[in-house]
Order: sequence, then structure tokens, then C-alpha cells
Amino acid sequence: MIVRPRPGLLRLFFILRGSVLQRIFPQVLVVMALSTVVVLAHRTDPGRIPSFDGAPFALLGIALSVFLGFSNNACYDRWWEARKAWGQLVAMARDLVRQTLILEHRGPAAAAGRRRLVDLAIAFPHALVVHLREGASPVDLGRVLPAGMEREALPGVPDKFLPDRILRGMGAVLATLRSAGHLSDMEFVMIDGVLGRMTETLTACERIKTTPVPFGYALLLHRTAYLFCFLLPFGFADVLGWGTPLAAALVAYTFFGLDALGGELEEPFGTLPNDLPIAALATTIEIILREGMGERDLPVALEPVDFMLL
Amino acid sequence: MIVRPRPGLLRLFFILRGSVLQRIFPQVLVVMALSTVVVLAHRTDPGRIPSFDGAPFALLGIALSVFLGFSNNACYDRWWEARKAWGQLVAMARDLVRQTLILEHRGPAAAAGRRRLVDLAIAFPHALVVHLREGASPVDLGRVLPAGMEREALPGVPDKFLPDRILRGMGAVLATLRSAGHLSDMEFVMIDGVLGRMTETLTACERIKTTPVPFGYALLLHRTAYLFCFLLPFGFADVLGWGTPLAAALVAYTFFGLDALGGELEEPFGTLPNDLPIAALATTIEIILREGMGERDLPVALEPVDFMLL
Amino acid sequence: MIVRPRPGLLRLFFILRGSVLQRIFPQVLVVMALSTVVVLAHRTDPGRIPSFDGAPFALLGIALSVFLGFSNNACYDRWWEARKAWGQLVAMARDLVRQTLILEHRGPAAAAGRRRLVDLAIAFPHALVVHLREGASPVDLGRVLPAGMEREALPGVPDKFLPDRILRGMGAVLATLRSAGHLSDMEFVMIDGVLGRMTETLTACERIKTTPVPFGYALLLHRTAYLFCFLLPFGFADVLGWGTPLAAALVAYTFFGLDALGGELEEPFGTLPNDLPIAALATTIEIILREGMGERDLPVALEPVDFMLL
Amino acid sequence: MIVRPRPGLLRLFFILRGSVLQRIFPQVLVVMALSTVVVLAHRTDPGRIPSFDGAPFALLGIALSVFLGFSNNACYDRWWEARKAWGQLVAMARDLVRQTLILEHRGPAAAAGRRRLVDLAIAFPHALVVHLREGASPVDLGRVLPAGMEREALPGVPDKFLPDRILRGMGAVLATLRSAGHLSDMEFVMIDGVLGRMTETLTACERIKTTPVPFGYALLLHRTAYLFCFLLPFGFADVLGWGTPLAAALVAYTFFGLDALGGELEEPFGTLPNDLPIAALATTIEIILREGMGERDLPVALEPVDFMLL
Amino acid sequence: MIVRPRPGLLRLFFILRGSVLQRIFPQVLVVMALSTVVVLAHRTDPGRIPSFDGAPFALLGIALSVFLGFSNNACYDRWWEARKAWGQLVAMARDLVRQTLILEHRGPAAAAGRRRLVDLAIAFPHALVVHLREGASPVDLGRVLPAGMEREALPGVPDKFLPDRILRGMGAVLATLRSAGHLSDMEFVMIDGVLGRMTETLTACERIKTTPVPFGYALLLHRTAYLFCFLLPFGFADVLGWGTPLAAALVAYTFFGLDALGGELEEPFGTLPNDLPIAALATTIEIILREGMGERDLPVALEPVDFMLL
Repeated sequence: MIVRPRPGLLRLFFILRGSVLQRIFPQVLVVMALSTVVVLAHRTDPGRIPSFDGAPFALLGIALSVFLGFSNNACYDRWWEARKAWGQLVAMARDLVRQTLILEHRGPAAAAGRRRLVDLAIAFPHALVVHLREGASPVDLGRVLPAGMEREALPGVPDKFLPDRILRGMGAVLATLRSAGHLSDMEFVMIDGVLGRMTETLTACERIKTTPVPFGYALLLHRTAYLFCFLLPFGFADVLGWGTPLAAALVAYTFFGLDALGGELEEPFGTLPNDLPIAALATTIEIILREGMGERDLPVALEPVDFMLL
Repeated sequence: MIVRPRPGLLRLFFILRGSVLQRIFPQVLVVMALSTVVVLAHRTDPGRIPSFDGAPFALLGIALSVFLGFSNNACYDRWWEARKAWGQLVAMARDLVRQTLILEHRGPAAAAGRRRLVDLAIAFPHALVVHLREGASPVDLGRVLPAGMEREALPGVPDKFLPDRILRGMGAVLATLRSAGHLSDMEFVMIDGVLGRMTETLTACERIKTTPVPFGYALLLHRTAYLFCFLLPFGFADVLGWGTPLAAALVAYTFFGLDALGGELEEPFGTLPNDLPIAALATTIEIILREGMGERDLPVALEPVDFMLL
Repeated sequence: MIVRPRPGLLRLFFILRGSVLQRIFPQVLVVMALSTVVVLAHRTDPGRIPSFDGAPFALLGIALSVFLGFSNNACYDRWWEARKAWGQLVAMARDLVRQTLILEHRGPAAAAGRRRLVDLAIAFPHALVVHLREGASPVDLGRVLPAGMEREALPGVPDKFLPDRILRGMGAVLATLRSAGHLSDMEFVMIDGVLGRMTETLTACERIKTTPVPFGYALLLHRTAYLFCFLLPFGFADVLGWGTPLAAALVAYTFFGLDALGGELEEPFGTLPNDLPIAALATTIEIILREGMGERDLPVALEPVDFMLL
Repeated sequence: MIVRPRPGLLRLFFILRGSVLQRIFPQVLVVMALSTVVVLAHRTDPGRIPSFDGAPFALLGIALSVFLGFSNNACYDRWWEARKAWGQLVAMARDLVRQTLILEHRGPAAAAGRRRLVDLAIAFPHALVVHLREGASPVDLGRVLPAGMEREALPGVPDKFLPDRILRGMGAVLATLRSAGHLSDMEFVMIDGVLGRMTETLTACERIKTTPVPFGYALLLHRTAYLFCFLLPFGFADVLGWGTPLAAALVAYTFFGLDALGGELEEPFGTLPNDLPIAALATTIEIILREGMGERDLPVALEPVDFMLL
Repeated sequence: MIVRPRPGLLRLFFILRGSVLQRIFPQVLVVMALSTVVVLAHRTDPGRIPSFDGAPFALLGIALSVFLGFSNNACYDRWWEARKAWGQLVAMARDLVRQTLILEHRGPAAAAGRRRLVDLAIAFPHALVVHLREGASPVDLGRVLPAGMEREALPGVPDKFLPDRILRGMGAVLATLRSAGHLSDMEFVMIDGVLGRMTETLTACERIKTTPVPFGYALLLHRTAYLFCFLLPFGFADVLGWGTPLAAALVAYTFFGLDALGGELEEPFGTLPNDLPIAALATTIEIILREGMGERDLPVALEPVDFMLL
């Protein structure tokens, strides 16, 4: 995620980091080149290159705007839902620390159970990062993984059941505490609710990761946007003349840009500039849990590098 | 559901799988042919074929865009809600395994009850696939259906009460466990909550399956889209000349495509390319439940065939 | 509700059932006739009939599209919320049967209480149909109304407190079961939750029925749509000539149609083609409850008559 | 709130009650007058009055439509949320009557506590009306306010803590019942949940009342809409001639009307035609509560006066 | 937040407070100046300055409107969600006072625990203001911070764990009350639910503060809006002549204004005119809590200064 103050008016036009411009630059350039060729051909030999009236293009462009608006809305909603799911993990950290305070009143075994619950909860978001983000380094995970949760998969290969195993590990601690009489049934259910919300987060993130916006939409919008922008010069060469390349590039920048941004937001767990900083969030959750347990030697919160937070 | 990385720019235009193009190809062709005829007639005998000004078409086209946007939004929401309902089943699997851990502390009869609960939960999503998807093969179902849940209906005929019977079967196990004192009332209510969410999923899926978007909308949008595209050549033949067939085909592809995609998403449980992969999800849920019970011989997750996951 | 497969391309244009065309046919005809007169007058005596440029109409038409889109969205949301509320009744039926299973373990008086609860729950949706739908026949209701719930109102006059009385009847059974010690307090609260959701459904349906979309909106959109369509011929007679009646009819069909469909969805409990089939849903709920109690002599599910389900 | 059947086509144009026309009539008249002057000036002295091409106006008009659509959507959502909050009070009434039935099994002191709870619940919606609606007559409130809840503020001045005090009064009854052993802790929590939802309603209504749509939006849309409509005649006088006043008035009616309707819905607790009938709802809730307690002498439901329900 | 009645028609155009005009005035002026230069150059030397046809601009303008509509919608939703989160704190205050009433029945130690809970709850919203709002004065916080919650950070530097520590302080009081037997487990869970909702509010506010709308969107819309408005004069100088500066300024005011308003709403905790009055809300919550505890010496509610409430 790009973290920076809104730039001033002049700098606005020269920012590359976080802009989608880098990714769509080739296509915009192609549209500009094509426009130049069309205008040139039009000037030198008006009869050869067909030129259309702009009206049907306007119609298609407006339709495209409406559909890109709809599609970006859907992608943004996914992105925001993913962020909310991670926010639920933050709330989980606070609730867990607070709700397990009663265990401190119930003897050392109960207090040890509490520590184990929190240790597992610290590992969970880091495991989730490895689970969701292609190529996320499992180094952080090794640092926080408690005993008994060693990864079963081969080294370097993500263990796809790890988040599940951590949650079940927490469930086992709870069941033991309940059996030993350290928790009343109501208290047991209350803390199990925290695990339930962690499960929800895991499931929601998996859903967003494995279920993209229907491929048919992506294809239809992609194709229409590209065809539209490639035909644009033919429609406007007549009326805009040498202004055509500029206008076509501006329109292409807007439409390709929105299409590309939608694609970035659609899969919010990657490491592209507009993706969610889930590694930083995992560290934040760890800090909240450790600080809540009274630790003083807290990990350092991740900072944006070159305005970018991972 | 189509599962594939976003294709590169060039391949984009040649993908058929998952594109809605195959289904609307005849209609687009008709529009192209009609356009050609109109332009031809226009050229050879300008007075015979009426030609209109494009402005009213632009107006209608924009209105149509807005309404198609609204309708696609509604259809996408249904599709996403269906996916969320199935996500709730995934969360259910995790919650059930975790929450029933306490039963392992309460003797062999309680543990046997837990096993029975999980076995029934494994059968539930497979039964739901047969319940929701026309023509789904009940083979998988036979593999997982526990004793006492044999299908009452004739072979080959879906038993429409089967999901209900499975849920009641789980409820009966719970009630027995409660009566035998293996569960406190609070714990009983907690696990019953899992069954409650399975009931919600079943009910939500049935609602989406049996209540399409109001027929009047489908009809109105269908008709307007078709009339619009068939009249298009008359409106643009004048200004676009031989560009008309191309432009009309592009507009028709966009409008027919969105109309068809909306129709696909509206009934998300089928086997069309943009439908939800509920059979694969049912297997995923089974894997989560079995892995959670410590089984090692897990079923194989369904893989996309030809980029398509069912 | 219209229940039928999407018709083929050709049949599409000849379906009347479920189309809103029947209801707006007179208005569309008026617009066509007016267009014809305007064109005729225009041809015979160009100076007499004023003719406007189309541009301002396009502006108004686009504004109208946006607002009709907003208004249809609101109406569709109401319709879908009403359907969800009824879906909650379906889930209620399943939850009630399952959660009351524990009563079967607690002696004949408890089992009789369970039967009474289910009998009242069977009557509730039928009572709700009579409560919500003007002119719904109370015959079905008489068939299912248990003893003690006889209608207080005069015959033929709906008893507006009946759904309330049924819910209170269920509450009284629960309170008696609780007092007699057949239910622990937690179990009592759990089953009371089912009654709470029935109350929510009742309240949500009443809200939708008694609170239409603000009258000012309906009026503003109605008026603008009509004025727009009646002025249309004056704007387009010039450029479209004899194509005007067709184009004006098409635009009028789209705008009047959306306006009328919004009005239908706004009050989803009636018997118009796009209203919800609440009578059929009430029978479905009855079937689920009876089948869940082990009855074999189930009522017959309502079937669509002439593609229409009530 | 206006309560009336949708009027027929002809009457549609002559309804004033509930139409926003009365409130925006002066502005529409100004636009018409201005248009007339512009056209007249244009005809008599074409060079003096500037006349612009309509295209930029179309652009601004479409942008304005989109933004008015967005803003009306936000206002409608507030209105509908306020209605839902009041619906929660209706459900509260039903839940309270039903859930407190158990108190009738627990001796006269418990039954007296139930009566006190219901009496306070009857007063709550009336107090909320006085709290939310400027200038609402506190007469009704005096009729229903139970002993001990006399208003602390000066006569005629709303007591802004009254709803809070009523809720705390209900909480005190509950705490006493709990302390006296008339309620188990679970039952206590269940009924406290009803009070929690009443608190939510109070808080949601206060939020909607005290937090308007950001003033910047209202100002921006207001200004743009007015400037747009006042410039309109200059843009269209050329092409529409004497049709300009009519067209400008129609556009102004639509845009001013939507702006004004949004403003009405934004503050839904007033007594304007499209505001919510909260006084009538308060009486409905009182009727439900009294009928539920077996009273026969029920207050009369408020009826629309001149199609208007307060 | 600006708090003022909607101004009359004439005053409407002269309000600066709360208008976004002040912030975008330079840009609008630049557009006006540029327009003047373009028109002047056009008049004196038509061949030198390029002039384009307006149609492609219309297309881009409409696309921009749709995307600005989408983006403003997202920003408004954030703003409203933030307001709802603070509303939850208001409801929390009421619930806490009411639910802890039972403690008054359980001896002086329990009553002292209640007082401590309320004192911490009073400090929480003030701490949240300091946590969320850059440069908020911690003076108010010092006034309300109870013993044991002294700030750990250096003076003048916000203590980022303070809200967390307050919540944990409340949790510790609850755990002590539970251990001392002053609360049954169900009552303990009920009051813990209030702390859970405070945690949700804290987490939601942090989420909104730390996760802006994706930077790529802001950049794309910013750039397109600016390029569009700077090119506008070239497109319309031809057709509008000396009306161009006015029209361009109007369009720029609308587009820049919406862009700037979206930016204001996106970060709703600041002190710009359209931000949320969280300091005033914190005082409101304090008043509700103190009044609920029977205090008579209530703090004074913050009043708008110059129509602006902080």
C-alpha cells in the first residue's frame, strides 16, 4: 500500500510510485503511436484511411464508463472487505488479551494456558500472510511459531493447513482449560467466539483470494476497453487533428488505468502498490498482543519503504 | 468458474473459454449481417432504406447502459452472496471441528457423537450440490452419505429433503449428547449455532436458486437491448459507412455480453463457465473436516479442467 | 412471480405474461399516436407545429435514466429484502424443528409442547399472507389455525393482531415449558431466538408494506418520465421523420416500463406478475415443518399456473 | 408521510400534496421568467445577449445528474435507516411482551415488574418523538409517562435526557427483578437485549438527526444545480426558441426537485410531506404493547389527514 | 463539521465557511485565466492556438463524472462508517450505565467497581480523539484520565497504546468483579460485550485512519480531472467564445470540488470543515455517562464556533 500525503498540484503529474501508469504505459504508447499514424495518413491521403463520426464512439465510451464504474466498485468492495477482515484480527488481538484476563485469577496452569493462547494468536496472522501472499517469506513465521506447530510441509513450500492447525491448537487449549474447570461454560463460549472470528477472517480471505470477479466480466471489459481505445483515433482524427494523440492517450490512460486498478484491487493480498499491507498488519497485531501481555521488548512496526508498505 | 491468470494483451482477443462470446456469437453475427445489408442498400439505393440520425440512439444507448449496469449489479450481488453462503460452510467446517474438541474429553460415547456429527457435516455440502445443481451426479454423495441417511427418493431422482434430513440428523446427535449430559446447555447452544448457520446457507442458496431477478426486468432489458442493436445500423449507416458492421458488432458484443453474463451470474449454481465451483467447494470442505479429525487419507481437491473448475 | 426459463430470441418479443407491457400499453400507444400526428403535421405544415432540437432532450433523458436507475435500485432492494425476510421464515422452520428435538427427551408433556409450537409455527406464515396481501383468501388459514387461535375479527375481515397472537401463543408455550422445568434457561433463550426472528420478519414485512418509497420521488419521476415521452416527438420529428413513432415508442416502452416495474417491486406482497409468491412460500414452510415432524401426508406445494406462482 | 394510492395518469399532473413542486415553485418560475426574457432579447436583438452552444451544458448536466443521483442515494439511505430503526422499536414491543411472559409465572411482584417495564416501553417512543421532532407536542407524552418519570425540564422545553431516563428506569426494574431472584442471569441478559436494541434505536436516530450529509456536498450540488439552471436559457435559446421556457422549467423542476427531495429525506423526523410518520408509529407501538398485555381499550391509530400521516 | 440551517437562495452563493471553494479557489482561478488567454489568442490569431471539437471532451467528462461518483461514494461510506463507529460509543455509554446497575445491588465493592468502569469509559473517547486526530490537545484527556492510567509517553507525544490500556483496565476491573463473585459468568460476558464493541470502534477508526482509498485511484482521478479542466478551454473556446471562462470555471468548480470533498471525507477525523466533530462527541459521551451516574455537575456540551463543530 502506498502511504504518502496527497502531493501538491505540480508534483501530482510526476509521481510514478503507486501510479498505475507504469503498468499501462506500453498500451498508452501504442494508442498514441497509432493515433499519430492515423492522423498522418489522414493528412497525406484522406481517402485511404477510413474515418468515422465520433457519435457512436461516445455512446460506447459512456457504456464502457458505466460498466467500468460497476466493475471497479465490485473490486473496491473486495479490497475493503479484505481490509475489514484483517481489522477483525486486530480486534481479536485486543479481545483475546482482555477476555483471558480472568485466567490470571485461576492459578498458574490457567495463566500458562493464556500464554499459549496468545502465542498461537501471534503466529496466526503471520501464517495467514504466508497462506495468502504468493512468495511471502516464511522467515517471520519461523520466528513466532510456537512449539508443536512446526510446519509439516517441505521447507519452502507453504503448509496450507497451518492456519487451520493453529486455530485447532487454540481450540485444544480452550478445551483443556474447560475440562480442568478453569473456565465456566459461558466463559469458554465467549473465548471460543474469538476463535470463531479468526476462522471467519481466514475463510473470508480465502474466498477473496480464490474467487476472482467472474472471468467473463474481466474479459468483456478488457476487450471492449482495448477495442474502444484502438478505434478512437479513427473516430476523432477528423475533428481533433493533431490533438488526437494527446486526447486518445488521455482517454486510454483513464480507461486502461481504471481497468488495471480494478485488477490490482481484485487480488488485494499481493505486493503490488495498491495491495493491502498484510505483513505490516501481522506485525501490528503481534505488537498489540505482546504489549497486552506486558512485554516490553516489542517488535518494530514495519515502515513504508519508498512510500510503500507491505 | 474459470481459473486462469489474466492473459496478455494479444492472447486476450483469442480466448474463447470463459468468454461469453460463444453464447452470443449468433446474435452478434446477425447484427453484423444486418448492418452490412443496410449499408449496402444504403449505398445502392439511398432513398429506399430509412436512415435515422444517431442522437436518439445515443439517448437510448445511455439509458440502456445505466439499466444494464443496475441489473448486472443485482446479478453480481446474488452470485457473491451465494459464494459467501458457501464460505460460511467452510467456516462451519472449521468451527465444528474445533468446538466439538471438548467432546473428546468426555468419554468414548461423546467422541463417537463427535465423529457422527463430522460425518454428517461431510455429507451436507455434497448433498447441497445435488440439491442445487441440475444434473449433478449423485455419485460423490453416495460415497460420503453415512448410515441412516440413505436416500429416500428413487435412484436418480434428487431427494429434496436430504439436506434437511442431514441437518436434523445432526440435531438429533446433539440432543442425545445433551440428554446424556455430555454437553452443558451453553455448549449445546454453541454447537447448535453451527447447525443454525448451515441452515442459513441452505436457505440462502434455495432463495437464490428459486427467486430469479424479476422476470419483467429480464424481459425489458432483453427486448430493449435487442431492439437497440437491431436498429443501430439504420442509425449509423449514414455516418459510419462501411465501418457500421464493425461498430454495431462491437456495441452488440458489449450489450449482449453484459446481458448474457448477468443471466449466468443470476443462477450461480449451474455449470456454465462463470458459475460457482460448488462441487470443488464441497470437496474442500470435506478435506478440511477430515484433516481436522486427523485423517491422513484425504480426498484429492478438484482441479480446473481446461481452466474450468466445477 | 413469473417462473419460466428464459425464452429464445424469437419468442422473446411475443411474451406478454410477466411483461410489464400490458400495463403500459395504453401510454405507449398514446406516445405513438402523438408522434404520428406530430410527424404528419410536420410534413404537411412545417411552420405550425414547433420542433425542437434533440440535444436538451438527450440531457433530460440521461438525467431521467440516472434517476430511474436509482429509484429501481431502491425498489429492487425492498423486494429482495422482503424475499430475505421470508427466507428467514424458512430457516426458522428448520431451526425450530431441530432445536425442539431436545423436548422429545423430556417426557410427553414436553413433546406435546413441541407439537403445539410447530402447529403455531405452521399457522404463522399463512396468517402473514392474509396480513400482508390485500384480498388473500383466508381459507388456507382456517385449515391450519390451531385451537385457541380462532380469529377474533368478523368473518372476511382480516384480524390484524393474528400474527402477533400466534407469536405470543408460542411465547406462552415456551414460558410454560420453562416454568415446568422442561427447558434450561439457556435452551429457553435459544428457542425464544427463533420467535425473535419471526417477529423481525413480521416487522420487516409490515415496514415494507406500510412505508412506500417517498411519494415525492414517485411523483417527480412519473411526471418527468411522462412529460419527457410526450415531448419526445417534437424533438425528434425533424431528424427521424417517419421513424419517430417507432423510436418514441421504444423509448417510452423502456422508461414507462422501468417506472412501472419499480412500482410493482415496491409493494412486493401483491399478486402482480413480479410480486413475491408468498402463498407458495407459506405452503413450503408448512411442508418443511410437517416433514420435519415426521408427517407423511404433506400438503402439495403450489405450482405456477400459466407460469405464475402466487 | 404521504399515504395514497398511485394516482391515474391525468390526476398525476395536478397533485400538489406531497409533491415537492410547492417548495421549488418560485425557483422554477424564476428560471421560466429568465428564459422568456432571454428568448425575447434574443429575438429582438440577437447580438446583445450572449448565446452558447448546448454541448458544454449537456456535459455539466450529465455530471450533475450523476452527483445528484449519488446524493439522493445517500439521503434515501438515511431515511430508510431511520425507518428501520423505528421498525426495531416495533419488534422490541413484540419481543418485550413475549419475553416477559415468564414473569407471570413467578408471583405478583414479578408480574408487577413486567407491567412497569411495559409502561415504560409505552412511554419511550412518545418521548423519542418529542426528542427528535422540533416542535412536537408533548401532550401525548404526558398521557403515557409513568410515575417517577415526570419531566425534569421546564414545561414546554424538551427534557433531553428523558429517553435515557426511561431506559435506565427499565434497567432498574430489571436489576431489581434479577436481585430478587425473579430472573435467572440468562433471562436477565435476554430481556436486557431488548433494552440494548432500544438504545441502538435512540442512538441511531440521534446520529441521523445531528449529522447531516456533509455541508460541502449540499452546498456544491445546490450551487451547481442553480447555476446550471440559470445558465440553461442562454445555452438553449438558440436551438429551442420559444420552447426554451418550457424545457428549462422541466429541467429545473427535475433538478431542483431532486435536490429538494434529498434535503427532505436527509432529516426524516420533521413534519414535511416526505418525512417519516413517527408520531403514528409511536401510537402503533403503544397499541401493540397494550394489546399484548390484554388491554381492550386501545388508543386509536393515527390516520392520514389530507393524505398525510405524521 | 459545519452545523447550520440550509441557507436561502441568495445567501447560498456567498457562503464560504464549509464550502470547499476556498481550497480549490487557486485552481479554479488558473482554469479561468487559462480560458481567458485561450479565447483572447483565439480571437486575435485563430490559427495559432489549436482548438478541438467538444465531443471527445464530453466523452471524457462523462467518464470522469461516473468515476468521481464512484470515488465520492467510497469516501462518503468511510465517513459515515466512522460516524457509526462513534455512535456505537454513544450506545456503549448507555448500555454500560444500565447493565452495571446490577452491581449496585451487590455491595460497596461492586459499586466501586462500577464507578471505576464508568470513569475509564469516560476517558476512552477523549483518548480516542487524541489517538485519531493529529494535533488534538491532550488537555481534556488529562482532566478525565483516572488514576493508574497516567500517560506513559513523553509529555506532548501521544501514547499510542492508551486506548488499549484503558480497555484492558476495564477488563481487569471486570475480571476482578467476576473473581470476587460480584458477577455471574453470564453477566460478566454481557458487560464484556460492551468492551468488545468499544474495541470494534477503536479498530474501525484505526482502519479508516490508516487505510486511505487506494492511492492509485486518487492519483488517476486527480490527474484526469486536472488535465480535463486544463484542456477544456481549448475544446470550448470555439463554440462558447467569451462564455468559456465562466463555463470552464463552473465545470472546474464542480469537478475539483467533488475531488476535494472526497479527499476531506476520506480522512474524517481531522479538523477540516466537513470532518466529524469527534471532540464534541467525546464530551457528549462523557455527559451521558455522568448524567447516568446521577452527577449534576455535567460538563458543557461543545457548541459550534462560527458554524463549525470540532
